[in-house]
Amino acid sequence: MDYYQELLFRMREIEIASQIRSILSWDQEVIMPKNGAESRADHLAWLSKTIHKKVTDPKIGEIISELESDKLDEIQSANLRITKKMYQRATCLPPDFVEKFARLQSQAHHSWAEAREKDDFEIFKQDFQKILQMTRQKTEYLGYEKSPYDALLDQYETGLTVTRLDPLFDGLRNEISPMIKEISSQGKNPNLEWLRDSNWPKRGQEMLSQEVSEAIGFNFESGRRDSSVHPFCGGPNPNDVRWTTRYDESEPFGSLFGSMHETGHGTYEQGRPSELAFQPVGKACGLGIHESQSRLWENQIGRSIEFCEWVFPLWERCFPGNMEGLTPKLLWRAVNIMQPSLIRTESDEATYNLHIMIRYEIEKIMIEDDIEVDQIPDLWDSLYQKYLGITPPNRKLGVLQDIHWCMGAIGYFPTYTLGNLYAAQLLEAAKKEIQDHDEKIRTGNFSPLLNWMRRNIHSKGSILEPAELIEDATGSPPSPDPFVRYLSDKTSDLYGINA
Amino acid sequence: MDYYQELLFRMREIEIASQIRSILSWDQEVIMPKNGAESRADHLAWLSKTIHKKVTDPKIGEIISELESDKLDEIQSANLRITKKMYQRATCLPPDFVEKFARLQSQAHHSWAEAREKDDFEIFKQDFQKILQMTRQKTEYLGYEKSPYDALLDQYETGLTVTRLDPLFDGLRNEISPMIKEISSQGKNPNLEWLRDSNWPKRGQEMLSQEVSEAIGFNFESGRRDSSVHPFCGGPNPNDVRWTTRYDESEPFGSLFGSMHETGHGTYEQGRPSELAFQPVGKACGLGIHESQSRLWENQIGRSIEFCEWVFPLWERCFPGNMEGLTPKLLWRAVNIMQPSLIRTESDEATYNLHIMIRYEIEKIMIEDDIEVDQIPDLWDSLYQKYLGITPPNRKLGVLQDIHWCMGAIGYFPTYTLGNLYAAQLLEAAKKEIQDHDEKIRTGNFSPLLNWMRRNIHSKGSILEPAELIEDATGSPPSPDPFVRYLSDKTSDLYGINA
Repeated sequence: MDYYQELLFRMREIEIASQIRSILSWDQEVIMPKNGAESRADHLAWLSKTIHKKVTDPKIGEIISELESDKLDEIQSANLRITKKMYQRATCLPPDFVEKFARLQSQAHHSWAEAREKDDFEIFKQDFQKILQMTRQKTEYLGYEKSPYDALLDQYETGLTVTRLDPLFDGLRNEISPMIKEISSQGKNPNLEWLRDSNWPKRGQEMLSQEVSEAIGFNFESGRRDSSVHPFCGGPNPNDVRWTTRYDESEPFGSLFGSMHETGHGTYEQGRPSELAFQPVGKACGLGIHESQSRLWENQIGRSIEFCEWVFPLWERCFPGNMEGLTPKLLWRAVNIMQPSLIRTESDEATYNLHIMIRYEIEKIMIEDDIEVDQIPDLWDSLYQKYLGITPPNRKLGVLQDIHWCMGAIGYFPTYTLGNLYAAQLLEAAKKEIQDHDEKIRTGNFSPLLNWMRRNIHSKGSILEPAELIEDATGSPPSPDPFVRYLSDKTSDLYGINA
Repeated sequence: MDYYQELLFRMREIEIASQIRSILSWDQEVIMPKNGAESRADHLAWLSKTIHKKVTDPKIGEIISELESDKLDEIQSANLRITKKMYQRATCLPPDFVEKFARLQSQAHHSWAEAREKDDFEIFKQDFQKILQMTRQKTEYLGYEKSPYDALLDQYETGLTVTRLDPLFDGLRNEISPMIKEISSQGKNPNLEWLRDSNWPKRGQEMLSQEVSEAIGFNFESGRRDSSVHPFCGGPNPNDVRWTTRYDESEPFGSLFGSMHETGHGTYEQGRPSELAFQPVGKACGLGIHESQSRLWENQIGRSIEFCEWVFPLWERCFPGNMEGLTPKLLWRAVNIMQPSLIRTESDEATYNLHIMIRYEIEKIMIEDDIEVDQIPDLWDSLYQKYLGITPPNRKLGVLQDIHWCMGAIGYFPTYTLGNLYAAQLLEAAKKEIQDHDEKIRTGNFSPLLNWMRRNIHSKGSILEPAELIEDATGSPPSPDPFVRYLSDKTSDLYGINA
């Protein structure tokens, strides 16, 4: 076996074990009986240990060295590039450090949960300080060129740096923040009594969920829809993609837009190149691109007037009687309420990125400067006042709301905003090639858009790095402009405000 | 780490990987999307390869040798005994032979399916001949003392031999066969119009299934009920046991008795000793004992008059209107129709063991003598005539009906009958200790019986070999007498025939 073949063989084994892990995780979240938890932890720990052993096998290091002087084609080079990154990431951290960090994360998870529960930052403070210390240390192990924060960003989106992110967030800061302030002082929101006064049976929500997902093009012979407390998209590979949602009979939007979000992730997974199955290059291209596919269907399409026109009769069928006296336009206004709020996960598509921007600014300071954790809660509140014009009344609705930091997942938040920006940029490019795009959405013909994504994004796997893929698909490097244009047009239509 | 600790460590890893395999198999049978099949085969193959590598690691052979001279307690000795058997079985077959046999099995599966479909034994003949040749060769690798067939029997029930089985089947041959012939010439079966003329909605069947399983004592916080084409009991361990059934709206008995059967398997799995989790000795004690637990609840309890009295009101609740004019006694008669039939899987509890006895006689000849496969179909038919008084009109209803032989699973059938015999013997012993057993069943109080099984069977894991466990629990070695007594009493009550 030559070196390249051996590389593929080893990566295939790692991928198979990872796919098995994803089936077990899905099962755990969705259908495992309660008492199965303890032994499931044993199963997952064994798989993780097995994978780690294979990933850090010194033989992989040797193969990489051997191949670096070889003449490789595009696919081969990409496989080598990704393997090398994976190997470096897995071997650069001393085992002692990894173990100590894992223990700290689990401890910090507990103290964060208690702190949030009791609305008392002091309970989390000490562990948070340790998380920051270890994360800073981690950046030194990972290595970086300019900012230590770059080392963290790169974990979630290859090649992402502060230098690349700053201009994107600048665009949002300068354009979106004023827009929101104007809407919140001048905009008039529609009456939502019809929504609050009706019951929305689970059966109807399930039917809506299923039919919309099928219409978008999710293939249910290669996937499933289920329900779970924390909605997600999982499953082992393109032929077996499993997404979940949750149902609340007092509120039908959560399950619909959640379903469209996960359907977006799901179509990406189903569209990955099957000829590159089990190769690193066949995998999805990072979290930002993944999020672009979910946000595209959830927001850009799902909250458009054209989609509301198509989906309205389906709402009428799913919820007989509930939609009397309503119109597609009223539905559209109801799914597009924009107003500043305190909780990221409940925010609308306009304010969402400001929540992320605040976290980005804090994370940069946390990692680049020697800020004391004591200062972070007030910094959080002051940034909410500055960009959203509101101040959290307590820590629970402020700095303690997200789980990410206690898990040491610093550098993750920006990928959410990248998803929104990429979605707008991709849709703008797709619309140039799809004749009568709006009319197609209005008539429920989603396949031209899905096929554009299949061709330009899904089928490309990880051959390119994320920023290159966006440029390859749209003709321009990542930019905040299409998103700003999109949101500005929308607020103008919705609120008559020209930002 | 001393040798015994290392043995446990290695067996734990093997057990974890096997548990993972069982989750993936369950998923494949029950909920996997259609297109997931191909990659699932890759997942399972990788797990099997990984397990095989660990099981055949020469280091295990060394550890076994070292431990054999050590002073071990009962649990330790049992762990050593089971590991040794597993290691010998896994290492005694040359890898070439294993691979060739696996290929032959897959090929024979196809030719058997086609032969059955076309009712043409000739299509299967050649592969069947090869299966027999390789199976005979396998017995030489496995080793045996008296009969080569012993080597095969031992695979499915440790310690089982022709010497042990012959007297059990003799008992059945001498007692049950005449009984059946008398019933079929003189017995009068009840009118089943009520059953055929009603529709039996799936919802009602599911409710019946669930309530009966809960009443028996299956713990749904440590397990699940689902539906699948081929009902089975699976899941990774005592805390996560998953059984399935199937529903046919024209016939409600299949799902109920199927559910009680799998619930029996399920309670055994849930009752395994948790303090011995991940140790060989903590596993169930072979197929015969397992089948005793399923048959106990399906037949001995499920088809008793007392159970029918308890369950009748539940039938009324599950199928409103359908049970009008019926009584518990009529229900009892309907679930106990006894008559000779051609297909094993559709046969009743009286004739079932004659189907198995016929297969046992043929298998013995197949392995011990040099019979030509050509002769087997007619041998089959003549034995059906001899013991059941009927002759298959074609091969499809005769020798081609079962999947076992094309899979090379020769020696498996007898465990089904062992299950029935053990069930009767265990129930007879339990009834001696449980006060007013019949009355307890009549009032739906199943816990004394389940607890007896927990104490005497489930919690014992594999500390003893199957025949020892039966003797330990009942005071006598395995015997056909309790089953014959049970069936004789029952036919007398049902048909007024004193066999």
